[in-house]
Amino acid sequence: MESFDKLTALLARLPGVGRRSAERMALKLIRDPELMRALSLSLDEARSTIRSCLKCGSMTPVAENPCRLCTATGRDDQILCVVDEPGDIYNIERAGCFRGRYHAMMGRISPMKGDGPAELRLQALLRRIEEEKFSEVVLAMSTDVEGDATASFLREKLAPLAVKVTRLALGIPAGSGIGYADPVTLERAINGRQVV
Amino acid sequence: MESFDKLTALLARLPGVGRRSAERMALKLIRDPELMRALSLSLDEARSTIRSCLKCGSMTPVAENPCRLCTATGRDDQILCVVDEPGDIYNIERAGCFRGRYHAMMGRISPMKGDGPAELRLQALLRRIEEEKFSEVVLAMSTDVEGDATASFLREKLAPLAVKVTRLALGIPAGSGIGYADPVTLERAINGRQVV
Repeated sequence: MESFDKLTALLARLPGVGRRSAERMALKLIRDPELMRALSLSLDEARSTIRSCLKCGSMTPVAENPCRLCTATGRDDQILCVVDEPGDIYNIERAGCFRGRYHAMMGRISPMKGDGPAELRLQALLRRIEEEKFSEVVLAMSTDVEGDATASFLREKLAPLAVKVTRLALGIPAGSGIGYADPVTLERAINGRQVV
Repeated sequence: MESFDKLTALLARLPGVGRRSAERMALKLIRDPELMRALSLSLDEARSTIRSCLKCGSMTPVAENPCRLCTATGRDDQILCVVDEPGDIYNIERAGCFRGRYHAMMGRISPMKGDGPAELRLQALLRRIEEEKFSEVVLAMSTDVEGDATASFLREKLAPLAVKVTRLALGIPAGSGIGYADPVTLERAINGRQVV
């Protein structure tokens, strides 16, 4: 059925959704017209009310662009936290431990998937560092292969600029036993040990 | 943002989508208004053109209910294949090895998730077996814990009826080495060995 195939193909474009799971989602939607209708309305509503922030890349109401995080007074204008995805910004905000500004790269370097530097918001980042005169850029990439690749790449690109580049501490996560830590985490935690 | 939270909550109702992945999907959609619009239109189109077949539960165009599989002449009216999900029907049809009728239970028994027999299309199945006078019911459940539980449950419910109940053969899948088979599969393959 053509309209089913089209729906499946669109769902498969969402992150983490393969052809098989897109098909399962579409079948569930067909069986639940109320959900299908609600989802369609919600998509239209979100599309008309939300935008990407021109500066940091996170979400913002149409009427507020740049977003509140970018325009809020009382935040530290010296320090910029660079993340992969807007979702990471909300997670850091929830923790309430960072009061600087943000910049989402909207992706990561993945040689396996062929995602390269061109797809990152690199030019915008370089421009912001120059114009907004940050003194420190914190790379808050994840600690997997793609996160490491993206962080290395950014470190290189930022090296010529007069800005201090740091990266989140690597170590044992809170509430976790040493017995559960993998060798790489342990090595990084030992190398990064701190005086207490 | 309210419209974002609503979209995330709706996406999280799709099968296999947790809160975190719903959030990632919603963020991706916010960044891709063209995809958001296409998905909304596609949902509306699918909703107005596709229905669940009243008999077997698979998808069918609005104008054809029961579906073509249920009404097609030249299929074997003696044998009914019972599956978990409509997707399984399409998979069996693709293989082209079965020419009987189908019945999708629209779910499986999952004590862990609290899904019970009430949610299955059991009454409809019992009614069909009686009215359509099938001589054999093939249980084509998957071979995991939930599939086994659903098959056991159905075997019990069908036992009082004058119908032969079978289940798909368990064994080594095609194109796979004995060295890769898990112990349960091997045991079932050995117990179900056939004269050649």
